[in-house]
Parts: sequence; structure tokens; C-alpha cells
Amino acid sequence: MTVERIGIILNGATGGLATAQHLPALLAMRAEGGLPLADGRRVLPDPILLGRSADKLRRLAAASGIERWSTALEAALANPDDTIFFDAAATGGRHAVLTRAIAAGKHVYSEKPIAETLDQALDLARAADRAGIRHGTVQDKVFLPGFRKLGALRASGWFGRILEARLESSRWVFDGARVPANRPSWNYRKRDGGGVVLDMFPHWRYMLDQLVGEVRAVSCTTRTHIPSRLDESGAPYAPDVEDAVFAQFELEGGILASVNTSWCSRVRREDAMILQVDGTEGSAVATAQECWIQPDAATPLASMAVDAGQRQDYRAQWVAVPDRGPRINSYRAGWEAFLRHVLDGAPFASPLLAGAKGVQLADLAYRSHRERRWIEVPTLAL
Amino acid sequence: MTVERIGIILNGATGGLATAQHLPALLAMRAEGGLPLADGRRVLPDPILLGRSADKLRRLAAASGIERWSTALEAALANPDDTIFFDAAATGGRHAVLTRAIAAGKHVYSEKPIAETLDQALDLARAADRAGIRHGTVQDKVFLPGFRKLGALRASGWFGRILEARLESSRWVFDGARVPANRPSWNYRKRDGGGVVLDMFPHWRYMLDQLVGEVRAVSCTTRTHIPSRLDESGAPYAPDVEDAVFAQFELEGGILASVNTSWCSRVRREDAMILQVDGTEGSAVATAQECWIQPDAATPLASMAVDAGQRQDYRAQWVAVPDRGPRINSYRAGWEAFLRHVLDGAPFASPLLAGAKGVQLADLAYRSHRERRWIEVPTLAL
Amino acid sequence: MTVERIGIILNGATGGLATAQHLPALLAMRAEGGLPLADGRRVLPDPILLGRSADKLRRLAAASGIERWSTALEAALANPDDTIFFDAAATGGRHAVLTRAIAAGKHVYSEKPIAETLDQALDLARAADRAGIRHGTVQDKVFLPGFRKLGALRASGWFGRILEARLESSRWVFDGARVPANRPSWNYRKRDGGGVVLDMFPHWRYMLDQLVGEVRAVSCTTRTHIPSRLDESGAPYAPDVEDAVFAQFELEGGILASVNTSWCSRVRREDAMILQVDGTEGSAVATAQECWIQPDAATPLASMAVDAGQRQDYRAQWVAVPDRGPRINSYRAGWEAFLRHVLDGAPFASPLLAGAKGVQLADLAYRSHRERRWIEVPTLAL
Amino acid sequence: MTVERIGIILNGATGGLATAQHLPALLAMRAEGGLPLADGRRVLPDPILLGRSADKLRRLAAASGIERWSTALEAALANPDDTIFFDAAATGGRHAVLTRAIAAGKHVYSEKPIAETLDQALDLARAADRAGIRHGTVQDKVFLPGFRKLGALRASGWFGRILEARLESSRWVFDGARVPANRPSWNYRKRDGGGVVLDMFPHWRYMLDQLVGEVRAVSCTTRTHIPSRLDESGAPYAPDVEDAVFAQFELEGGILASVNTSWCSRVRREDAMILQVDGTEGSAVATAQECWIQPDAATPLASMAVDAGQRQDYRAQWVAVPDRGPRINSYRAGWEAFLRHVLDGAPFASPLLAGAKGVQLADLAYRSHRERRWIEVPTLAL
Repeated sequence: MTVERIGIILNGATGGLATAQHLPALLAMRAEGGLPLADGRRVLPDPILLGRSADKLRRLAAASGIERWSTALEAALANPDDTIFFDAAATGGRHAVLTRAIAAGKHVYSEKPIAETLDQALDLARAADRAGIRHGTVQDKVFLPGFRKLGALRASGWFGRILEARLESSRWVFDGARVPANRPSWNYRKRDGGGVVLDMFPHWRYMLDQLVGEVRAVSCTTRTHIPSRLDESGAPYAPDVEDAVFAQFELEGGILASVNTSWCSRVRREDAMILQVDGTEGSAVATAQECWIQPDAATPLASMAVDAGQRQDYRAQWVAVPDRGPRINSYRAGWEAFLRHVLDGAPFASPLLAGAKGVQLADLAYRSHRERRWIEVPTLAL
Repeated sequence: MTVERIGIILNGATGGLATAQHLPALLAMRAEGGLPLADGRRVLPDPILLGRSADKLRRLAAASGIERWSTALEAALANPDDTIFFDAAATGGRHAVLTRAIAAGKHVYSEKPIAETLDQALDLARAADRAGIRHGTVQDKVFLPGFRKLGALRASGWFGRILEARLESSRWVFDGARVPANRPSWNYRKRDGGGVVLDMFPHWRYMLDQLVGEVRAVSCTTRTHIPSRLDESGAPYAPDVEDAVFAQFELEGGILASVNTSWCSRVRREDAMILQVDGTEGSAVATAQECWIQPDAATPLASMAVDAGQRQDYRAQWVAVPDRGPRINSYRAGWEAFLRHVLDGAPFASPLLAGAKGVQLADLAYRSHRERRWIEVPTLAL
Repeated sequence: MTVERIGIILNGATGGLATAQHLPALLAMRAEGGLPLADGRRVLPDPILLGRSADKLRRLAAASGIERWSTALEAALANPDDTIFFDAAATGGRHAVLTRAIAAGKHVYSEKPIAETLDQALDLARAADRAGIRHGTVQDKVFLPGFRKLGALRASGWFGRILEARLESSRWVFDGARVPANRPSWNYRKRDGGGVVLDMFPHWRYMLDQLVGEVRAVSCTTRTHIPSRLDESGAPYAPDVEDAVFAQFELEGGILASVNTSWCSRVRREDAMILQVDGTEGSAVATAQECWIQPDAATPLASMAVDAGQRQDYRAQWVAVPDRGPRINSYRAGWEAFLRHVLDGAPFASPLLAGAKGVQLADLAYRSHRERRWIEVPTLAL
Repeated sequence: MTVERIGIILNGATGGLATAQHLPALLAMRAEGGLPLADGRRVLPDPILLGRSADKLRRLAAASGIERWSTALEAALANPDDTIFFDAAATGGRHAVLTRAIAAGKHVYSEKPIAETLDQALDLARAADRAGIRHGTVQDKVFLPGFRKLGALRASGWFGRILEARLESSRWVFDGARVPANRPSWNYRKRDGGGVVLDMFPHWRYMLDQLVGEVRAVSCTTRTHIPSRLDESGAPYAPDVEDAVFAQFELEGGILASVNTSWCSRVRREDAMILQVDGTEGSAVATAQECWIQPDAATPLASMAVDAGQRQDYRAQWVAVPDRGPRINSYRAGWEAFLRHVLDGAPFASPLLAGAKGVQLADLAYRSHRERRWIEVPTLAL
């Protein structure tokens, strides 16, 4: 058995997602002796931490046992032994940095959104294809165990014809007065790339596309419910982007989807994010970690309880989809799929074009809100 | 203690709602010795069953112990001892029969919808006001114990400023092939007054108006998901009205409401119909029978479970609003309120104008679907 | 609405099954105003109790409010107003009495077994067909709510291809020493028609035929485990028929069925009788009253727990098939089906030929035991 | 306290069972300071890992902290300090390698089946006896805590006279299309030693012999239900051995046993493998980890629930046999018994002759299937 290494530039290594998810995913592969490929080889990820603060990088390197770190982007790109460039730095600089990485011949893997505008996103996708490199965008949600089970159900034809979907992804974000705010203040500022639509609609695009049906039209209404908040320093500020969005989508085959995303709603569900899909033969409800199904044969004659005592236990009428293997961290599963794409040529569901679709949907959703009407979502191609 | 009688003409007495809900509500009052009024009097409802089939009326009279029944509308209206006229007969004849009852000087109480068109509905409301009689429309849902508790929370200011509402009222209706259909086939035929919007949007109007905030605009998209069904005789037919509606409403004060009503979705909730209201100070979730609340002080730092084992029990973080009196059947509660309105002059939240608002909303919802855009809901006045 | 009567001769009216099940089923129909037919008519069963003990008949008539009773078979058969003859008297006399009823032009309905030998059973079925009357045999188990649900699953194609079935119908019958025997002593005597095979294999035949697949071959081994028992008077006797049978069946399409029937085994299951059916797409487990299913999508990676702590909750991985209508007593459901067959010409799954199949299977099962080998089950025809 | 060592050659050390069960069992004894013997000595197992791949052996040695490993069988057998030879390598080479080990004077302990044919198995058993060495075959199931409790019940006479047994060992094995297959493809190929009978009937032989009664006759019917499967590489293949077996056994004293073993059935039981034994004085139900009993005094008057509401909780009428010591891993328990047999002369229930009986039963079961009849199982002797 051969063990090879693959050099990976982790740009934005000291940011939240990189530190909490991406780097640990790579470290876990290393701890297990590398990622096994189809032909029996094992590949050991060998990351170099790239960022702007030498102090932070040095500390992260020490804590994680990674030897290589740098603040010099050009030098990193110039090293032919590092063949993958991953970007989790600020969205504002993403188009520029990815363009340079592509030009340097690196395979690129990027956090979402892959750009701030659709034009930039398409520009990146075209450049990547022209360069002949392998590329992809992070789509962590479809790799979560519960949503993965739901995707497998759809692939197996379990639903019959899918009719409807409901996605609820809401929770209460404190304004910082009585309880410290549980989202950073930049999420509430337009100039910093804030806003619920920009943050979450790229996720909804690939989740709906892959788990339910391709998105064809969007109707979207936003609100800024909370007019004043306190930032990390305790200073008041006025959010200038939405903190709640109620949307509907039309998907292929006439499927209707209701998608509510709000930072102003309290959770009385199995999890903050939950997706229900109804089909002629059965329904499924999935959270990040779990998935329950109700086949037609177990579907009850449901009715509202007008008089007390007529009630059914509607939850007990569903059965959980069991695990059929270990639960893998969703970011790690994404990395494994991308590395196999680069090294083995395995198919990868999320090239940069898929990232562009996410940017497109966010754009059109804002337009739907302004024009108070449904907006068709044109097919994107390069 | 004085016990008086009040004569009530029950038109359409042998229909489903009258037999199952309205008549038992009046019989229960009689069994308890009459309805107590504010001044200590008790009033015994004395119904006369009015309908078209003498056979059915005779049997219903025998089964219920009611002596008076008739097929003669004019004669019934001519009896000055019966001062209330209630209509639960077919919607098609409602405008005509209520017009005659108003002309005969009866107080009128009516099932919904109070008419087939907004013009007819407004005409009735104006005629009733001109005649100086007391009038009302049945709005049973707000009298259900759970929704009543939610209404009381709002009246008390408990929510702070209300921001959002979610109303889900969906369940699976079988197409009649493997399992007998659990809704009558007329619900699926336009000429018979079928369709989810016509059936349910009158309810949503008064529930939103009274429990959350006045409706100001509607965006609505419908589907006929199941193209072929079997009727009561087992014969196939093609539904020509919608079996699912995803809607959004804008309510007073900028409140956003998501309302999904579908006969093509399976239930994994506390009940088939459920209403969540979120406000700055707390949230409530109500079903027909129950109501749970989460005040700001009990609101958790919620998040999606990315890795197994990080989960909170989000349901356990809510507390039930306790009963503070007996649970009263919602139709009976409506009758008690209307009788007190007639006899005591107590306020009544659902005059015929409220019924006209329900008809208006259904009309505009269909228009929103056709035009694929938001439609404003003008204020109705007489 | 017309209400007619139908005269029914209940032969063996004072026997256990007639008193506990069949007569109450007819009385319940009467109490509800008769059985509704497809064309709107209602039919009121009007039974005459026939038996050998005038005393017992008189008491039963008084207790049940039935006016007509008799000990005179010929006179009863001569009454043209009684058009149905039902037999629940002793098996030994069944062939003779049913032959006379058929000759008298009655429609006949019979408890099982319909005869003591296959020849007699076929003779009856042929005579009934020649006479042009309607006829049937009681097959109560398929009308039990749980097994009915399982049958509906099969009819809907839910199982995919059925592979295996397991029927366990065992319990402990006390020998009368410490605890009074909970089966009558005739069950243990050959001359009285005792024996597990004769008692239960007619049931297994129609249950397997209708719920799983047509029986094609049988392998059967019997035991008389308990050599000495006490009868109703406390006197010891030696059973000369089997008290336990382990059998296997081959059904159409290669389905394999394991059927254990024993009065010498203790129950650690949901019910004394339980039927599991496994198919490529899912499995079902049914008892008399309940039915649970596990679709392929909810099927776990099951394994034996070698080390403690690795266990799954295998029961929680099944979901119950809900009720979609009231649960009807199985004997009454059989009567309703037979009456509709006689009066409406509705199809009836259990003509006397089906009864003959039950007798055939019991015969061949005994032969399989004697010859210690599989025996093919030839197709029966008239 | 003296601590001695005992040298053990682990042949086939890098195979699944050796790595997952046998080696950890020996390591656990080492970690606890050795196995205590009856006379107070402690014996430390000192294994040498024997196999064919130096790479794999080196890694296993490193991971387990075992210093000695080798690919040289002859050299290993020549070392007089290693007195026990254990074989868990491929079945095909077992007869040859055990023959050499016996010739070298080693005590031998072997996984099952001990040979591919009955003649070879008897040959081994005779050679071992002639050589005067100690020998045994792995019979892990009887050492599982639940089955061990059941065996203790039988040994104590608790059952009275045993009448019947039911062994169910079935679960669903996926075909590899929607869900990866959960058994290796060699299990489905004749040339690789696949098939349910060959895999499991050696287990059933010693379980029935030791826990219920000696096997005297077998009737067995097999099926290959699933005609096409996907192998480890995703390639389709056609299984040529059975994937399901329904069998009956006659045991000493007329005991009847029903044994269903299937990879095509879903589990609604306490565990995938479950054994019920019924006797005149009481019954027991055992899984690998648990054992429940119902004595005669707690046996209810059981009956099927014809009408709803008549039900007993049949499970609650059993009581668990409590632990009276720690639960020991079944493979380790087998090793402890064999080591005490070698070192202390303690009795050992599974000499090579017991292994030959397992091979014999599998042979006769296949013959029963071909001839569609019961086959007697002759007593085996050396």
C-alpha cells in the first residue's frame, strides 16, 4: 500500500469555518493514515495555513500540529508541490484570489458564496474550465447525515412523484441587550456581505436542486424586524439588511416549496433547520442528523382535534431511517469527495457553476422582493 | 331564577355540520338548564329543525328529542316566537334565504362562507345593518381552546411586538384507490364550491385578523397535485380545483405570515393545524386544543446540529398554557357568544361584515395566483 | 329508504361460537337498523334459533330478544321465508345437515371445517353449485383488523416480491392439574374431531392463500407432547391427537412459509397469533388487531449483539398501519360480506370450495407427517 | 502468585475474526495480569502472529503491541515454547495445517468449520486423539451471556421436560444496490464456501446439542430468494447458494425444534438471533445478551385478541434472568475454557469431534433439501 501526500493551501485558515471545520476534517484524515482511494492508494493531506496575521497562524499551527504556515499568497501559489487551493477567507476578496489560484494552475475549492455577483461567479467558473483544473464549492448541508438520507430516498424513487417541500430554518438571534448576540454584527450590514438571503439562499439552491428538484422560480419577501442591535463592542447599530425571509420556490415538475428563513423565530421542532418532502408514495422529514419517513401504507386519516380526546400521536406514525454506516462530519465528507474528484476523477456534484447558481438565486430573490412578484430562474450555462 | 326560551330556526338542520356540531351545542345548553346571562336569567334554546327532506327531519327530531321540525321556510319565518334564524344549508342558496330572514326581522347567524361573491356578502351585511337586527357568522376556530389561549396571550400584550406567524394546516387526503377518500368529492369540483382556497381562506381571514393582526396583502400559489381521484361511488374523476395552496400574508404593522394549506402533505406535528406566532418578548404555538409558550427568558441559543451529540431538546424548552376553566366545544362557544350578543347586547367579534372579509380574501387569493404577484387587500366598509 | 327482512336459520345456535360471535353479529346489525346495501335498501336479519335443547334455546332467545326458536330442523327448512341456513353445530353432522339445507333451496353459510373428509367437502360444494344457491364458509381470521391491513398491503403491491412468511400461533394450554384446562377435552380426542391440524390448518389455508400466496406443498411434523390430561370432570385421559405441529409450506412464486401451531409453548410476542411477511420492498407483522410495517428505506443493518451496548431497538424501527375506519368484529364482517353476496351479488372470497381446500390441506398435512416428507397440494376444482 | 507464560501460535492472525475477537481476548487477559487457574497460578498468553502478508502482520503487531510475528509456519511449529496452535485462516487450508500442528505435538484450537468434509473432520479428530493432545473448536455462541444463562437453566432442570424449541436467526442483507451489501460476496458463492447452511448449521448443531438436546434428525428447505446482487466493487453477480433456510430438527426425547435462518427477513424481535425453549415447568427466551423466563406459575391463559381491548401485555409476563457476575466476551470465555482445559485439565465441551458434528449436520441438511424429506443424523464416534 502506497501513501502519498497532497499539498493543500488553506487560505483564510484562521477564520471561523476553516478553524472549526475544514482544518479538523483534514487532520482527521491524517490521523487515520490518509484517505483511501479506489485503487488502494492512500493520500495524506498536507496543508499550509495561509492568512494575514502571522500571530494567529503561528498559534493555530502549534495547536493543530501543522508545520507549514505563511502570510505570502504569491509564494504559496508558486510552490508546485501544493496543488489544491482552498479559500475560506472574506467573500470580498474571493474573486481576486481564486482568479490568481486558477491562473497558477491550482485545483480550487471554495467556501460559498464563490463571488459577490453572478457575473464574477460565472467568470470564475469559465476561467476554471478554460484552465482545465478541478474545481468545486463547499456544499456542506447535503453531506449532513440526515439530509444525505433524504437524498438517498429521492434517488431510490421512494417518494413516487414529489409534490411539495417545506424547509424551515429559523431561530432566535438575540439583539445583544439582555443576552449577547449569537451572530456577528457583520451579518446585519450590507457592506460586509450581510443579510439572510445572501447567507442562506446559496444553501437553499443546492439543497433544493439536489434533494428535491431543480429550482425554476422564486417568490420572496424580506423583513428587517429588529431595527436596532448592539454589536460586539456593545455599541448600538441599525441593521440595513433583512433578518427574516419568507420564500416560495417552484421546482421542476411543478413541485412547490415553502422556505422560511428567519433569525426572529423560536424553535419548536426537532432541530433549527428541518426539511419535509411529500410525495405520492410517502413523505420524509430530515434534520441535519436524522431522517424520518412515513410511507403511504402508514399514512393516517389525519384530522384536527375539534373535541379533546380524539387525538392521534402524529409523531409516532413515522419511522426513522437507520444508519447504515458511520456518521461522517459533513465538511470532511465534502473534502473526501473533492479529493477523490481531484485524485481519482470521481464525479463531484458541486463545481464552481453550482456555486454560481447559488449567487444567481440570491440575486433573483432580492429582485422578487423588490418587485413583489414571482421571478423565473433561467438555466445557467457556461 | 327565571328561565326563558328563545326560538331558533335551524335551516339546513340535517346537514353534516348542523347535525354534528350546532344542534348538539344547543342540546347541551338545554340539558344544563339553559344559558346563564349576565343578569341571572337563564335562556333555553328552542330550535325548530328546517330542511327539505321530511324523512330526514323526522328521524333527526326523533333522535335528538326535538319536537318541532318543518319543510316550510315561509311559515317558519312567519312565526314571531322564533327570533333567530341560523343557516347551515348549501352555500348556493344562502344569500337568498338570509335576505328573506333579515326581511322577516330575524336575527341571523350563518355558517361560512356567507355568500358566493363579495358583492352578495356586502349586500347581506348592509341589509342586516339597515334592518337593525343582530347578526353574525360562525367562526369556530377562534373558539377552539388552544387558539383561544393564543388569542388571550395577544390581547394581554404577551408577545411584545408581533413579528411573524406560521400557520400550517395540511394533511394527506387519499385519492380513493387504496384507501377510501377522506374528503367528499365535491371538495374537488369547482361547480360544487370546491377548492382549498374557498374552503379555508375564510377561516384564515378571521384567525389572522383576530389572533395575529389584520390582513393587508396576500401572495398565493396553488396546485392541483393529484390529477385523478375516485368519487364516493368508486368512479374516477379529474379535480378542477386546487388541492394545495402555499400563501404569504402581510398583516398590520409589517407582520409577515406564512400559511400552507394542503391536502397532499403528511403530518409530523402536534396536530394537523398548527399556528406559531413570534414576538419580540416571546412566542406561542397553538393547536386546536393546546397552546405552548416560550418567553424571551427561556429562549435558547439555538443552532443546527452539525455534529452528533450537540443537540438540545427544543420541545422541552416550551411550557404549556394551563386550562383555567373547562374546555368548551368551539361551536357551542360560538352560540353562547351570539346568544349573549342577541339577548344581552354583549360584543360579538364576527358580524356579517367579518364574513364578507373571508369571501374577499378568497377572491384576492385566486387573483394573486393568476397574476403571480402580491395583491393588496383593501379595507372593507359598509 | 326501504327496510326488508331476511330470515336466517341459525343451526347449532346454543354452541359456543354461535352464541359468542355469530348471533351478536346479527343482533348488532339489527340494532343499527339493518345492513345497508349498495342500492340504498337496508336489510334486517331475522334469525330463528335452531338446536337440540329446548331449554337452552328458550334461555338464549330470552337473553337475546330473539322470538323465534325451534328444535325441528325439517319444519325450519320448510319455511320459505327463511332463505339462509347457517351451520355452527357439531362437525360430525355437518355434511348431512348442509346437504338437506341445499336440497331445500337454502343459501348456506357454514362454520369450518365444512366436512370431515375431502370427498364430503367436494360433494357439498358440487351440490351447492348444482342447486344454484349462494354458499360460503366462515373465514373469520382474514376479517380481523390486523390481518385485513396486511391483506390490503399485499393487494397494493407494497411488499414488492414476497419471499417468506412466518406464522406463529402457539400458547400454553394447561393440563387441568394445577390450573383448569383452557381448551375443551374434545380438542384432544380423535373421535370428537380433535387435533391441532384439523382445528387450525383450514384457517392456515385461507390465510396463506389470501394474505401471502396460494399453498402448493406442505411439510408437517406433529407431536403429542402431554400424554395425560384431566377432562372437564377432573378425570384423567390420554389425548390421542397431536397438541403441537411444526409445518412448512411452499406457496406460489417460491415463497417459503414457516407455521408453528402449538398448545405447548408460552407467548412472548405481541399476541398469541402473529404473522410476518417479508418482501423485497418491505415487511409486515400482523396480529389480530394490529399491523406494523418496515419499508426497505427504514430497514437497518441488523446484527446480533456480540458485545453489550451495541444494540438497536429493533421494535422502534417499525411503524403501525393506522386505522382508516372503524374496527369491525371479524364474524360480523364475514356476515356482512355473505349477506351482500346473497342479496347484492357482491363477490365472496370463501365459497364452499374454499372450505374444501381447508379440509384438503389438513388431510395432506397428516400424510406429510406419516411419510416424513413434503407433499404437493393439487389444485382443487369442481 | 506465580505468573507463567503460554506460547500460542495464532494462524490467520490478520483475518477478521482473529483481529476483532480472538487477539483482543488474549490481550485482555494479558492486560489483567493473566488468566487465574484453579491452583492460584496465573498464565499470561504469549501469542505469535502467523500469516501470509508481512506488511499486514507488521502493522497488526504494532497496533496491538505484540512483538512476535512470522510468515513461516514450519519455524513456528518447530518452536517448543509455543504449545498451542490456533487456526482462524481460510477453511480451505485448515485440514492440512491442523494435521501438521497435531503432528508437531501442539494442542490445537480451531475456528469452525474444522474441515470441508465430514471425512476430513473425523480424520482430524482421530489424529488429535491418537496424538494425545488437547483440542477444541470455537463455539462462541454458547459463551454469549444470554445463551449461557439459558444453558444454566437447562442444566439445573428448570424446564422440567423440554418439549419444543424455536431458533430464529434472520435479518435483511442488502443486495448492494441502494445500500451497500452488509455481508461479503463470498457468502453468496459456492466455490468460496458460501451459503447459509454451511455458515450457520455448525453453530446450530452445538447450540441445540448443548442448550436444548442432541440432534437426531433434520428436515431442511432452502431458497435463493435474491437472484442478483452487487459485489464489493459494485459489479453484479448471481448468487449460487441459498440465502434462506427453513429447517426443523428432532432432538433427543422427541423435542421438536424449528430453526429459521434467513438473510431475507426483517427483525421485529429483541435481537436478530433469538432462541425460545419450552418445557413442562417453564419456558425461556434468550438472545446473545439477555435471557427471560416464564415459570408455570406465571403462565397466563393466553388467547388471541378477537375484539379490541381484550389484550394482555404478553411481554410483561416474563422476568429477566439477572447477571450474577460480569458479562464476559464470548470469544474470551471460549479461550479461558480452552486454556483451563490445556493447563488445568478442566472439561471442555467442544473437542474436534464436536466440530465434526457441525460439518455432518450441514451435509445432511443439504441432502434433506435435495430429497425433500427428513434425514436421520447418525451418532458420530471415533
